[in-house]
Amino acid sequence: MTLHPEDLRVRQLGERRYDSPLADLLSTKQTSPHYVAEGDRVLLEDTVSMLAGHGLPSDQVPSFEAAGPRRKIYFDPANVTAGVLTCGGLCPGLNNVIRGLVQELAVHYGVKRIVGFRNGLQGLTAQHRDDTVELTPDAVRDIHTAGGTILGSSRGGQDADEMVDSLVARGIDILFVIGGDGGMRAATFLGAAIRRRGLEISVIGVPKTIDNDLPFTDQSFGFQSAFARATDFISAVAVEAAASPNGVGIVKLMGRHSGFIASYAALAANAADIVLIPEIPFVLGGAEGLLAHVERHVRAKGRVVIVLAEGAGQDLLEDHGLATDASGNLKLGNIGELLKDSITAHLTGAGLAPTIRYIDPSYAVRSIAANAYDSVYCLRLAHAAVHAAMAGCTEAAVARWRRRFVHVPLSLMTSRRNQVDPDGDLWLSVLETTCQPAEFGPARQRERVRAGFC
Amino acid sequence: MTLHPEDLRVRQLGERRYDSPLADLLSTKQTSPHYVAEGDRVLLEDTVSMLAGHGLPSDQVPSFEAAGPRRKIYFDPANVTAGVLTCGGLCPGLNNVIRGLVQELAVHYGVKRIVGFRNGLQGLTAQHRDDTVELTPDAVRDIHTAGGTILGSSRGGQDADEMVDSLVARGIDILFVIGGDGGMRAATFLGAAIRRRGLEISVIGVPKTIDNDLPFTDQSFGFQSAFARATDFISAVAVEAAASPNGVGIVKLMGRHSGFIASYAALAANAADIVLIPEIPFVLGGAEGLLAHVERHVRAKGRVVIVLAEGAGQDLLEDHGLATDASGNLKLGNIGELLKDSITAHLTGAGLAPTIRYIDPSYAVRSIAANAYDSVYCLRLAHAAVHAAMAGCTEAAVARWRRRFVHVPLSLMTSRRNQVDPDGDLWLSVLETTCQPAEFGPARQRERVRAGFC
Amino acid sequence: MTLHPEDLRVRQLGERRYDSPLADLLSTKQTSPHYVAEGDRVLLEDTVSMLAGHGLPSDQVPSFEAAGPRRKIYFDPANVTAGVLTCGGLCPGLNNVIRGLVQELAVHYGVKRIVGFRNGLQGLTAQHRDDTVELTPDAVRDIHTAGGTILGSSRGGQDADEMVDSLVARGIDILFVIGGDGGMRAATFLGAAIRRRGLEISVIGVPKTIDNDLPFTDQSFGFQSAFARATDFISAVAVEAAASPNGVGIVKLMGRHSGFIASYAALAANAADIVLIPEIPFVLGGAEGLLAHVERHVRAKGRVVIVLAEGAGQDLLEDHGLATDASGNLKLGNIGELLKDSITAHLTGAGLAPTIRYIDPSYAVRSIAANAYDSVYCLRLAHAAVHAAMAGCTEAAVARWRRRFVHVPLSLMTSRRNQVDPDGDLWLSVLETTCQPAEFGPARQRERVRAGFC
Amino acid sequence: MTLHPEDLRVRQLGERRYDSPLADLLSTKQTSPHYVAEGDRVLLEDTVSMLAGHGLPSDQVPSFEAAGPRRKIYFDPANVTAGVLTCGGLCPGLNNVIRGLVQELAVHYGVKRIVGFRNGLQGLTAQHRDDTVELTPDAVRDIHTAGGTILGSSRGGQDADEMVDSLVARGIDILFVIGGDGGMRAATFLGAAIRRRGLEISVIGVPKTIDNDLPFTDQSFGFQSAFARATDFISAVAVEAAASPNGVGIVKLMGRHSGFIASYAALAANAADIVLIPEIPFVLGGAEGLLAHVERHVRAKGRVVIVLAEGAGQDLLEDHGLATDASGNLKLGNIGELLKDSITAHLTGAGLAPTIRYIDPSYAVRSIAANAYDSVYCLRLAHAAVHAAMAGCTEAAVARWRRRFVHVPLSLMTSRRNQVDPDGDLWLSVLETTCQPAEFGPARQRERVRAGFC
Repeated sequence: MTLHPEDLRVRQLGERRYDSPLADLLSTKQTSPHYVAEGDRVLLEDTVSMLAGHGLPSDQVPSFEAAGPRRKIYFDPANVTAGVLTCGGLCPGLNNVIRGLVQELAVHYGVKRIVGFRNGLQGLTAQHRDDTVELTPDAVRDIHTAGGTILGSSRGGQDADEMVDSLVARGIDILFVIGGDGGMRAATFLGAAIRRRGLEISVIGVPKTIDNDLPFTDQSFGFQSAFARATDFISAVAVEAAASPNGVGIVKLMGRHSGFIASYAALAANAADIVLIPEIPFVLGGAEGLLAHVERHVRAKGRVVIVLAEGAGQDLLEDHGLATDASGNLKLGNIGELLKDSITAHLTGAGLAPTIRYIDPSYAVRSIAANAYDSVYCLRLAHAAVHAAMAGCTEAAVARWRRRFVHVPLSLMTSRRNQVDPDGDLWLSVLETTCQPAEFGPARQRERVRAGFC
Repeated sequence: MTLHPEDLRVRQLGERRYDSPLADLLSTKQTSPHYVAEGDRVLLEDTVSMLAGHGLPSDQVPSFEAAGPRRKIYFDPANVTAGVLTCGGLCPGLNNVIRGLVQELAVHYGVKRIVGFRNGLQGLTAQHRDDTVELTPDAVRDIHTAGGTILGSSRGGQDADEMVDSLVARGIDILFVIGGDGGMRAATFLGAAIRRRGLEISVIGVPKTIDNDLPFTDQSFGFQSAFARATDFISAVAVEAAASPNGVGIVKLMGRHSGFIASYAALAANAADIVLIPEIPFVLGGAEGLLAHVERHVRAKGRVVIVLAEGAGQDLLEDHGLATDASGNLKLGNIGELLKDSITAHLTGAGLAPTIRYIDPSYAVRSIAANAYDSVYCLRLAHAAVHAAMAGCTEAAVARWRRRFVHVPLSLMTSRRNQVDPDGDLWLSVLETTCQPAEFGPARQRERVRAGFC
Repeated sequence: MTLHPEDLRVRQLGERRYDSPLADLLSTKQTSPHYVAEGDRVLLEDTVSMLAGHGLPSDQVPSFEAAGPRRKIYFDPANVTAGVLTCGGLCPGLNNVIRGLVQELAVHYGVKRIVGFRNGLQGLTAQHRDDTVELTPDAVRDIHTAGGTILGSSRGGQDADEMVDSLVARGIDILFVIGGDGGMRAATFLGAAIRRRGLEISVIGVPKTIDNDLPFTDQSFGFQSAFARATDFISAVAVEAAASPNGVGIVKLMGRHSGFIASYAALAANAADIVLIPEIPFVLGGAEGLLAHVERHVRAKGRVVIVLAEGAGQDLLEDHGLATDASGNLKLGNIGELLKDSITAHLTGAGLAPTIRYIDPSYAVRSIAANAYDSVYCLRLAHAAVHAAMAGCTEAAVARWRRRFVHVPLSLMTSRRNQVDPDGDLWLSVLETTCQPAEFGPARQRERVRAGFC
Repeated sequence: MTLHPEDLRVRQLGERRYDSPLADLLSTKQTSPHYVAEGDRVLLEDTVSMLAGHGLPSDQVPSFEAAGPRRKIYFDPANVTAGVLTCGGLCPGLNNVIRGLVQELAVHYGVKRIVGFRNGLQGLTAQHRDDTVELTPDAVRDIHTAGGTILGSSRGGQDADEMVDSLVARGIDILFVIGGDGGMRAATFLGAAIRRRGLEISVIGVPKTIDNDLPFTDQSFGFQSAFARATDFISAVAVEAAASPNGVGIVKLMGRHSGFIASYAALAANAADIVLIPEIPFVLGGAEGLLAHVERHVRAKGRVVIVLAEGAGQDLLEDHGLATDASGNLKLGNIGELLKDSITAHLTGAGLAPTIRYIDPSYAVRSIAANAYDSVYCLRLAHAAVHAAMAGCTEAAVARWRRRFVHVPLSLMTSRRNQVDPDGDLWLSVLETTCQPAEFGPARQRERVRAGFC
């Protein structure tokens, strides 16, 4: 694409003369991974070699190693034993990734032995290391039609050295860890332990997070399947809310720290009146609080539909459960129940005794099979993981960054968290679609619920 | 993200010592929009402002104007009349875009009059310009649940000046053209005619192509819905082929010039043995030709499943119909029928009289409603289009480029075509999944069908 | 079909010599609406006129009036005003019935005025009687694509005479009540009140029950849609249970008094290990109790999936909440929570600390749109209801009895309840499929869980 | 249910005074399996024992043997070898039936050897009889999630004695033939040959017909899945037709001799304007012919949607292809193409040059997996087939008759054909829904297309 900067210039009718009605939503916005500020521009090209021709000094700019097959590889395929495990909560696509790994290893590289460890990292403990599944192309042929994982999963940390012992005992040359936060952290420790012991074992992470909260990842695999399924439940409570006087529908969706599923599902279903996510704190009481907004909405439209990420409003829960679960995740208090009770009390007090329909469909969302898009994505991600491993990469994750498959150092995958940017364009779209105020609380912006649509 | 280049360095176990079994697929590959060559790297950051800090001279590098709301706008919303039309073939998401435009115009900018022109550009002819639909938030509230377009569509070119007359007659300030190749070309001419006449009418294109063949677009809206639906038909003929001795399943999918739907659907369904696309010519006869491969496959596995883009193998059709349709598109000969007949003759001659199951499901694919992902995408694209128009952009299309919404000069949208790169990673994934040879013909590479999986 | 008894005789190879392994399941079975005993036979023909030729004295045998159009009708269509309302819980198909009524009344009979009363019987109170919706073919054209009811619903009884006053005030000649138990009872009272006042108003019930618990009905409309959707949730918890060590999946489905949804969904999903329904009491403790069976199952297979009707095991709930809701239905205690807690305690005590996945998807099941079968069924039922009303029937419900559409006196519809027959062939199929014991408790039959399948 | 005739009497407001607008549709109707005439009544009870108490002489009335388990059985399960085969075209549910047979035989009766013959009756030829599949509960556990048949299928007749030889050679005691017309006929011949040779082999048919054209069957398994899927294609062409000026959508569905799929799918989709089935001949030309009606419809509404059974209008095809296929079925000429061409010519001649969207989705309909209802139905039918066989029944089919499972002599299953009754209530519903005339031709009844809805 030999294009000159001026080729990409867009025509403008003339000077901009009017204040935009949306201007007050824009005041704090600047360029970020989730927003391009007014006046900034998006590069046509995205690789070091492409930009070098335009004067970019290639050694000073942060960039990712491209994923993909290499002409020369590190391992002799005929002598490789690969291991695979899945850990953390379920997510659509786990079986697709397993299947893609096995297909690529066996069919294209000719790897003969592929071992599936059962129930996540637990499968690498001394006690369980021999309870494995042999993974062959035949054994995995149709597994992608089912949700879940044929290998089982679990949460929680095991001793890195005990796990390395298992790898050595089983003669593993390459280990694929398909997992989330916890799994990537464990894989990082495992890789370090392997390095300390001078072993030539490649550890490759395939990051999994239904919440889409891992960094350096366009959208995590399974995310699209998950939010698509979640829309069904928003529609369900919207139908319920519409069928009862003062109907209130509440759906609690996944999202401990990041409200992506809630945001995308709400945009797709287009039936949500309020979206609450962990990134945007909210206040219940007061004239600008959530309850007053709910009341105004029910009074005006006869109903309200609320989509809630499980991690939203945690500060509101007096008993906010600081205990950690086996994987070291904070346990969340149940914001759904709190809202249900608060809204019932508030609306009843306001003479609008509601019919509340509350559902938490998480298991029914995360256990589905991958949709067509995620099937392709998982397959290609698995191929990339195999190429990385066979080429001798280690302590690396495969990821998709702005539609390119890349290698990311494992430790980086847990160094930060992907979240909905309150100043990004996704959240702006949510606000535009729900017409909810930018914030619920004393400082919130002017009410923008308008007649007819929102 | 303050990351240094070395932070993104991935660890390598050691020197790469073995030739990869995939090496011969890699010989010709170099960095392109569809591939990142070995050794090249993908930039972490993607905007001019982000890269400027790393020494990129911003005025010399091709880049897109970011889409999104502006603080100051060109039109006074209270006095704006907007027009909307859809043209070209059906595509999932048309109604979602219409709905998103109306919602954003009416609710957020407060535009009062939105006119829908019927049946595409035909609606801008003098004869039909008054046969319009009034578009209000109420009228479009639920239209996204249905496929097709509430405005109707048509193909074919109208006189640009007659169309400008209609816009003037109807007092249109902003025209949104949701259309494909033909529509974008017409919008370009229309914009030029408006410019020549010194009118202050903004023309904004929302590019639509179920084939995903428009440039500067990650994936066109409706594409994911379409290929997901297409997988059902691959599965259908795969089931049929498996249930009959010498079963041959053939699905002809959309794709006049670009085999994206065929490729993605084949990857998602994972039941295709052969994928044929316009970008990769193939030979029928000879030991390395398609028919011999089909025969070998049927002999080995008892069946074969072929996914075919409608534009594949056009050179093979003696009567290749060079007539153009009303939009100026080349008419394609029916490669599906040719294959059906050739394969029947060949296999019968080889003593493998086949049961052929051939289906062309195009209408059933393109007429569905948008899935959850495309629903969100269409909504955000529509919002971007409205922001562009209200800000006074014109002769521009809105597009998504590496996950950023951008403005692209309209004329560029038809200046080139997005195609499956035979050296890109998508096609590589197809080859890895189907195990078909890289080419059917004399020069094709060694057979890679292996036992057990492919 | 002129067939003689001997034409229908089936050939038998010879004398039956062996005891069936299933014999002990058969001991108590006799002919009933849900079972045909060994030796009994099913009639080829099913109408009075058909059987009269075979010597059946037609006036002594219980039979239903056939539904359908009549050559002569009672009302002058040109002067008829019809009313429609929906009451009770949501059920797939409500909008289809509304639509079918309006279509048949308006298009085929030419009725001009059709009034929709809002929010069930509440809409017939003096306070709300004027808050109505005008129902025209145009207004209802696409409503069947959505679940719920465009008329709204509510529970609870209103004064019959006040409701008659509303009918008179609004000039209603025909009232269609689409509702459940409570609705049919209210319609019965309403019909009686009309009769007492000598009014010529027809009251026709269209029985609605997602639980399939109304009598004289093959399967209530929406039932198939509902149990089909319910299978998704059984699959979900089955996937979850399979992915965790000692995984326990529990789904609580609708079914206050009748376990049809639980039974059918379990048969369709084919992933349930235990089905618990109101008709079959069960014991938790003891060697033959539910908990011991669950423990054995988890020990043998590593997991268990339980499908539970909400009304199952109510006797086990100490606090069994005898309060009645607004419609006079008994309020049920939450057997799902009880089971969850009991199983957790029991398995933990047995050294099998479980991962429990419990979901109550009721709102997500009952709010869906009707599937294809129910769409046809609702349409035909609505047509039958209109024919009945126009012919002057009153205090009648339309129903489908052994695949014939019939009229049933309204009072009969609430005189008994359709339940799963513990001695019927449906429950036998459930036992055959789950391999659960016929009963959980001291007297239960021998364990029949066998290797490999169950 | 001790109910007296008077309990079932429905109240009537008074004398019927007006001629029904529908009266002329009723003139020829009388009681049949598809209609209950005005004045006739439907029996509450349906078995010989139940009716005996009401004076029905049980030995003179045609009745079916009830299906179900028997206390005493003919075969010793420990020594039984069962065979299974599927023949004829694909139909949703084949794998469910196979799975249900294997489950019941192995788990409940303890049968050890179950042999699957491949590719239908071809699998019983001397040449192929050893190419079998061993069917175990494990092997069939998940096969119901896929369409088609794991055993393969074929059409066409084999020599009965050769097939008996195969059964003897393989030691088969029980053979289950899952097939259509051709399969039931072959099974009849096979049973007769076994009888002639004095062998103790049970032959049990499980009738399969996606067209629903076999007699003594409420609805054949797979039928509901099939017509549900077919509605998608009606919706597709309806969307297409609505999006083009003078849009004409045509869907050709299965139905060689019986228009059930076309009728039910049209009722469910509710988008069809014209339904054409084999049972109702039609005329193309003339003022009352189909083409004139199509023209009127397009002129009035701008579009028309036609649903067509493949066997409709065969008399119109000059070249009506009287050759028979391998199973002895008449080959049908392509009525879809004829209609497409005739309508194009007619409308073009009338100045309404159409956009025609024609699709024949048969393979995509018949290859799907069974839906939830059919899954339950297939399972129960398979259970009934096993009970019949183990009890020593032979030359019998299992069927569902008015919701009871019964045994039907095999020869009867092919003695007549189930068709849409032009005087039955199903076709009446189609006419009411489409508003098409009762017949296309000189004698057709008055036009009933009315404003607004039809």
